[in-house]
Amino acid sequence: MARPTPLSGFPEWLPDGRIVEQHVLDVLRRTFELHGFAGIETRAVEPLDQLLRKGETSKEVYVLRRLQEDPETPAARGHREAEKGLGLHFDLTVPFARYVLENAGHLAFPFRRYQIQKVWRGERPQDGRFREFVQADVDVVGAGSLPYHYEVELPLVMADALGALRDLGVPPVRILVNNRKVAEGFYRGLGLTDVEAVLRGIDKLDKIGSDAVAEVLVAEAGATPAQAAACLELAAVNGEDTGVVDRVRELAARYDASTDLLEEGLGELGALVAAAAERAPGVLVADLRIARGLDYYTGSVYETVLVGHEDLGSICSGGRYDTLASDGATTYPGVGLSIGVSRLVSRLLSAGLVRATRSVPTAVLVAVTSEERRAASDAVAAALRSRGIPTEVAPSASKFGKQIRHADRRGIPYVWFVGDTSDDGAPAQDEVKDIRTGAQQPADAATWAPPGEDLLPRVVAAG
Amino acid sequence: MARPTPLSGFPEWLPDGRIVEQHVLDVLRRTFELHGFAGIETRAVEPLDQLLRKGETSKEVYVLRRLQEDPETPAARGHREAEKGLGLHFDLTVPFARYVLENAGHLAFPFRRYQIQKVWRGERPQDGRFREFVQADVDVVGAGSLPYHYEVELPLVMADALGALRDLGVPPVRILVNNRKVAEGFYRGLGLTDVEAVLRGIDKLDKIGSDAVAEVLVAEAGATPAQAAACLELAAVNGEDTGVVDRVRELAARYDASTDLLEEGLGELGALVAAAAERAPGVLVADLRIARGLDYYTGSVYETVLVGHEDLGSICSGGRYDTLASDGATTYPGVGLSIGVSRLVSRLLSAGLVRATRSVPTAVLVAVTSEERRAASDAVAAALRSRGIPTEVAPSASKFGKQIRHADRRGIPYVWFVGDTSDDGAPAQDEVKDIRTGAQQPADAATWAPPGEDLLPRVVAAG
Repeated sequence: MARPTPLSGFPEWLPDGRIVEQHVLDVLRRTFELHGFAGIETRAVEPLDQLLRKGETSKEVYVLRRLQEDPETPAARGHREAEKGLGLHFDLTVPFARYVLENAGHLAFPFRRYQIQKVWRGERPQDGRFREFVQADVDVVGAGSLPYHYEVELPLVMADALGALRDLGVPPVRILVNNRKVAEGFYRGLGLTDVEAVLRGIDKLDKIGSDAVAEVLVAEAGATPAQAAACLELAAVNGEDTGVVDRVRELAARYDASTDLLEEGLGELGALVAAAAERAPGVLVADLRIARGLDYYTGSVYETVLVGHEDLGSICSGGRYDTLASDGATTYPGVGLSIGVSRLVSRLLSAGLVRATRSVPTAVLVAVTSEERRAASDAVAAALRSRGIPTEVAPSASKFGKQIRHADRRGIPYVWFVGDTSDDGAPAQDEVKDIRTGAQQPADAATWAPPGEDLLPRVVAAG
Repeated sequence: MARPTPLSGFPEWLPDGRIVEQHVLDVLRRTFELHGFAGIETRAVEPLDQLLRKGETSKEVYVLRRLQEDPETPAARGHREAEKGLGLHFDLTVPFARYVLENAGHLAFPFRRYQIQKVWRGERPQDGRFREFVQADVDVVGAGSLPYHYEVELPLVMADALGALRDLGVPPVRILVNNRKVAEGFYRGLGLTDVEAVLRGIDKLDKIGSDAVAEVLVAEAGATPAQAAACLELAAVNGEDTGVVDRVRELAARYDASTDLLEEGLGELGALVAAAAERAPGVLVADLRIARGLDYYTGSVYETVLVGHEDLGSICSGGRYDTLASDGATTYPGVGLSIGVSRLVSRLLSAGLVRATRSVPTAVLVAVTSEERRAASDAVAAALRSRGIPTEVAPSASKFGKQIRHADRRGIPYVWFVGDTSDDGAPAQDEVKDIRTGAQQPADAATWAPPGEDLLPRVVAAG
């Protein structure tokens, strides 16, 4: 087999990169569990008809077929696949909704769950956009109803989780919040009825600028130039405190665009901003320009930027669905957010923002004096491991200098020499060497331990 | 959407089952890292031509197709897929071999890696046999050569990992060991040349019994009845100490079947059994009947049974490959084992062997006195979490009895009441109730902690 080349869109990390990713995942899991979210995993596949319910995602789905299934005519096949076929999930929301319906009788609602898994999308790979990637989701789902306070809580859970990553050297984040009711209430108050068209136009602000968006709103959303200008004024509102609510109210009064829906939305947005200013100051920002996803969601909507890396796009998005799932008898509303772990980790690694202090878990390499005495080295390793110290034994009884280089190449900080009274270069009693400083001292495998910071590889800010 | 039904062969657990699985995974990872194995993850897909190199697995592969790829004629399609198609990996060995070749320049050899991921096989689902399941692999791979002592070390790593699971209530295991060189050396010494045919016959022992196997060896492996009897005598040898080696040598002398290959194999097997008797007494057993996989492997081969659940089949198998991978210039020999985590966990759950002490991570539910005072409950929760205590806040300010039932249904052991001097049923100062005993006492969110055993859900032997 010739040397294989990487597959575009399917990221893999070298061992030290995987240590970074694993640390990120551990911190997220730990934070989600501190907030009382239960972890679940769902299968990688869902029935195609469920995956294709949202038309626009159909392009992205990977369809599965067993190799021994004989291909018949394309038409017969297409039919069978549409009816009974399976595809890889492209997010964790569709599978979660199905899991809730399937297991509703065994779950206690409101049900808080986190889920960290790979998802697959057949999109064209780009920087930060993959065909296989890891998502980390938290959602709360209710049976029949779900109080608004969860729309305040969930982004704060993510603020906590992303904040905990700062200890690893991850840059700060800003979670941008909008509310579908505010946007829709304002547009309707202005007299605009094609709300989706307005949202689609506003969504283009970053790409084409406000003049072009105004033209789009006139051409495609049936707005007058004055209405278009008012929509753009709303989109320009942002801030970290409840002053945002006052500014929107002012705007609505000026354009005579107040509606009950707008007031309801402002009440919600105001509560969120107030709680955020208290519990995660500077992290949550109301930003009335956020339009993406507003057509799926029914209340709050969230996007998150990594400060200094805004070009990466959102690394944590989500919102409120009034109907996450429904089995006819019961409707399950939900609110949740999803972190794009692969997008985040790939930037951390490619921009050299963080690094692992070594590429292996091993803290100690036990040297081998001769193959006949390998068992003595194995015994030292077992003693160290029994006290939680990651240890491996040298691959061969080569010269000690070579064994030290073996450790050095992997970043293993300590080499252990097993004591031996014969004349072969080994010390008379056990000694351990810090190969970074060269300091070597007598040690007992039953009691010696490395400093805490050397015990396991750590992830630290690079540079 | 009507209530969906589970998909056969794609196991999913309820939250308390997932806690069991997650604990198992955590213990395995922890043990692998203590032994100095670096974790990697590979993508879920490999090129079909790589997946189909072993002919017999071709049936099991799931082929991927992007939905928007227009089907052409079946013939054109089949061709394109065989040439460029992707399939889901069916084990972690094929992807690891590819990863080693792809990254050889960045890895330090011998390279010790563990890998815990899902794999997919389109087989007919049965008890303990799934279409999607989790494997946990450890391998050591060398560049050019790999000393025999790794064939001793790797099963001992797994003995350590599976032994660590006993704290969770998992039954003991027995790791059965054989050596390809012993079997082949003995068969050749007898004058049998179709070694694969003999192995295929011996592999049927459990299913059809020794008389029928003898007939198979005569009919299909060209053995005389006396040669067949000798093969069956070899297969009957097993034991925990080096007496096994003596018995095989005796047998070979009796049949005049000694060969250099047999002696080399016996030297290896003897070293393994001797080390195992020292380091994991009673766990590793030489069993000369183990034939499965001997045609893939070139040295030691391992299978593992869960004691009392032998019907489940092997839960941890592997062996030595002289050519795990090769890029023409360099050959990479390896040795490793793979735990069938889903098979193990599904038996633990279905047989009720272990259970989680609760179904959520939450140790404390903070009650809410009124929605106006929810922020006070949020503040208590934040204080507890900051000291590592998993905490959630009650979903609504319902009667305290209902809030306690909310905790009780999830197994949350403590309910916290936020102090309030107004007359609404709340205590004047903060109090915490152990809802299992009903004991309630004053508590301070800045200092109180639950007993260690209540902090997180634990996994314990059931019954």
